[in-house]
Amino acid sequence: MGERLTEISEPFPDRVEVRGRDLAGDLMGRVGFTEYVHLLLTGDEPTDDQRFFLDLLLVSIAEHGLMPSNVAARITLAADPSSLQGAVAAGILGAGPVVLGASEECARLLEQAVASGRAPGDVTREIHEAGGRVPGFGHPLHKPLDPRAERILALADERGVSGPHVAYARALRDAVATEWGKPLTLNVAMPMAAVLLDLGYPVVAAKAVPILARTAGLLAHLAEEQEHPIGFLLADRAALTGG
Amino acid sequence: MGERLTEISEPFPDRVEVRGRDLAGDLMGRVGFTEYVHLLLTGDEPTDDQRFFLDLLLVSIAEHGLMPSNVAARITLAADPSSLQGAVAAGILGAGPVVLGASEECARLLEQAVASGRAPGDVTREIHEAGGRVPGFGHPLHKPLDPRAERILALADERGVSGPHVAYARALRDAVATEWGKPLTLNVAMPMAAVLLDLGYPVVAAKAVPILARTAGLLAHLAEEQEHPIGFLLADRAALTGG
Amino acid sequence: MGERLTEISEPFPDRVEVRGRDLAGDLMGRVGFTEYVHLLLTGDEPTDDQRFFLDLLLVSIAEHGLMPSNVAARITLAADPSSLQGAVAAGILGAGPVVLGASEECARLLEQAVASGRAPGDVTREIHEAGGRVPGFGHPLHKPLDPRAERILALADERGVSGPHVAYARALRDAVATEWGKPLTLNVAMPMAAVLLDLGYPVVAAKAVPILARTAGLLAHLAEEQEHPIGFLLADRAALTGG
Amino acid sequence: MGERLTEISEPFPDRVEVRGRDLAGDLMGRVGFTEYVHLLLTGDEPTDDQRFFLDLLLVSIAEHGLMPSNVAARITLAADPSSLQGAVAAGILGAGPVVLGASEECARLLEQAVASGRAPGDVTREIHEAGGRVPGFGHPLHKPLDPRAERILALADERGVSGPHVAYARALRDAVATEWGKPLTLNVAMPMAAVLLDLGYPVVAAKAVPILARTAGLLAHLAEEQEHPIGFLLADRAALTGG
Repeated sequence: MGERLTEISEPFPDRVEVRGRDLAGDLMGRVGFTEYVHLLLTGDEPTDDQRFFLDLLLVSIAEHGLMPSNVAARITLAADPSSLQGAVAAGILGAGPVVLGASEECARLLEQAVASGRAPGDVTREIHEAGGRVPGFGHPLHKPLDPRAERILALADERGVSGPHVAYARALRDAVATEWGKPLTLNVAMPMAAVLLDLGYPVVAAKAVPILARTAGLLAHLAEEQEHPIGFLLADRAALTGG
Repeated sequence: MGERLTEISEPFPDRVEVRGRDLAGDLMGRVGFTEYVHLLLTGDEPTDDQRFFLDLLLVSIAEHGLMPSNVAARITLAADPSSLQGAVAAGILGAGPVVLGASEECARLLEQAVASGRAPGDVTREIHEAGGRVPGFGHPLHKPLDPRAERILALADERGVSGPHVAYARALRDAVATEWGKPLTLNVAMPMAAVLLDLGYPVVAAKAVPILARTAGLLAHLAEEQEHPIGFLLADRAALTGG
Repeated sequence: MGERLTEISEPFPDRVEVRGRDLAGDLMGRVGFTEYVHLLLTGDEPTDDQRFFLDLLLVSIAEHGLMPSNVAARITLAADPSSLQGAVAAGILGAGPVVLGASEECARLLEQAVASGRAPGDVTREIHEAGGRVPGFGHPLHKPLDPRAERILALADERGVSGPHVAYARALRDAVATEWGKPLTLNVAMPMAAVLLDLGYPVVAAKAVPILARTAGLLAHLAEEQEHPIGFLLADRAALTGG
Repeated sequence: MGERLTEISEPFPDRVEVRGRDLAGDLMGRVGFTEYVHLLLTGDEPTDDQRFFLDLLLVSIAEHGLMPSNVAARITLAADPSSLQGAVAAGILGAGPVVLGASEECARLLEQAVASGRAPGDVTREIHEAGGRVPGFGHPLHKPLDPRAERILALADERGVSGPHVAYARALRDAVATEWGKPLTLNVAMPMAAVLLDLGYPVVAAKAVPILARTAGLLAHLAEEQEHPIGFLLADRAALTGG
């Protein structure tokens, strides 16, 4: 008797089963990609709110100009033009905590803080006194507000999905302003994490969603790079020591 | 005066412009992720047919069980559990011509063949006589039909988007059967390429679409790996020389 | 006036300067690769002992059979045969803390413990009571001794380079046996870290050395894969659910 | 009975066998890393000439300033500081034909040309007439000579290892100058390929050697990046559209 190594999908000669459904006979043509992403990740089809906000969050984070990871990917494609997948991989490798992964840290913080019932002021003070920074605050360009963060919060309220994690994210904004003596930009990472948790997603979704979103942005930059190459120009501008 | 390095997007302090639109003010909450992918890649919002088939193709190719790239990604996450992005990158690196990239070769073949007006039998014979194989034919498991390929073709007909590239893909099926003396499975790569071309997408989309789709499948496997680790088991089973 | 972004090297039309030396005129043909690695990493040429042990450690850790990262790399090359660099990258991505990176954790532990003067028994007990494991102990195959670890310690003694970090590594072996009530294999990671620190290398070397070493092993497996492909066989064996 | 999947190495509880030798008992402390690389790749220990030139070639190609792949790797480490292996992987992914992989193309060209006995002028003319470029010629900075290439050729003559492939590389220099009507820089890729072939290495070595060498350069840049971070500065300089 065979063992079953994964619950996600299994291919057979005449069909592919995904999460217990028939891929060609049931899913293809009926569910959109966003719903399918939800099904793959969780095993269930999304509610309307889950689908709406999964779309919203993927759109919010996919692209933000010539970010470091797009620069690295375009340089990589210039050096190895035949490997689109290599350049995508190089770009995704820059999806670390500093640039993109803050939403996972935000999700972890929110989950623990809400579960423990600790006051935002206490959580913030503890982080500050330990010499740390609260994830999800600050942005080099968007000041005083990150328009994407505000839009997510507004839509969460408008559609009635704001729950304890969104409330805690907002309370953190005030606590951070008090603790640091000035307001800091609530960037897109914190509302993304809060909404995902309020909609029932696990913490890992707060990292999976930005990685998937950013892959779309990378593919757009790499398609453009094939038409209008700037990869070596970017590398030259970066490295130029002249003056 | 500043130069403009990319046409895709540009961030400003109070907004992010993507393809000339305001990300937070216009796109977020209005367009879904699939439409946004189309906008990022092409600069325009999709027609209904483009959105429908982009969804369909992304769904068709995202996941197919414990494929080699999913195995490689799960092994990589087991070895470095803190780097989801590293494991995704490792999985994407396996998205090469043998496993996933056939659709790009199919697109190139279809584009040239349709543009040149050459007969499918001539194209097939030339490839065969050169000792080659026609891309998009044959599958180790799905015989005689790949259910995903058939579903794509049926929906293309049903919605009236089948054009010269879909017709050529079908003609190739007959030509291949004649040339090799037996029918070979038309796998999912060829209808995917044909439909993308008939809908006006560039050849690069035939590689970008599977990479984005597969990233979703990888993320599902890696989320499962975090809950139920099998990465080292997979590596052990692969390497076991005993008996 | 130009700024200087890196101290490592600078190319000019008629020469390449590396760490202040003329690459073609001075280094090429005079220094071996191991000495050059030392020069690149540290800015200085190595002493005889540094060169001997850098060679030793690189040799000790480069290859260990069909390890998970070699499996992942061979699967990746099978899927994308034209990209040797992609398969190497996939293999290196598995060089994380579980499989390969333990030496960096060992170096950090040894550096702090020796600097603080804390007793090995106290350090070990603290880790145990916190539910943790001491890095560098335990091996699935090599029991009760890891032959590579013993050889490194013996040569460190023989050549008189054993200092406080090697002494601490040995003391940890006894402390771990006492704390856990049974001896655990001192694996190759701990002596590697200890010798590097006693020879004056920074902590980062304890991760750089295994990554460089393992790249050589990966390249050997990938050269063999090109001659005798087993990548898909490995993936099939891993994924096979039958019985 | 167990099958044997790889000829490179096999670990046992009390020893590790590499290419039929006992790693701890025989190789560690006796062979240097360069000799070990040769043993891993080929199955044999190198002759003195093979070791000398393997060292020479690894040294010649490891580092060349803030090259595109070093830029991409430093940007990636800045974005994900905890993953040295991720940043190395990103850097290696840029080791494609344009920047680094020309030596493999040179090796393929030299092997076929020498085996076929075709005249350099004919080979060059055919490439030119097909609209192509001869690999290994031209360099954006090193003009009219690449000092590394000249040094390799001089040492190959001096130590008596120059054979038919080195002779052909030299003849190509003249043929290219005649065909294009002006001399082009013979860059480091061509002598590297020629010497490897004259010393009996397979074509794959012409790609493996630069990848291993470049990994050392990447590790030096990433160690420096940890001490003196410039990754985000590089990305900013690259992307800056202002003026």
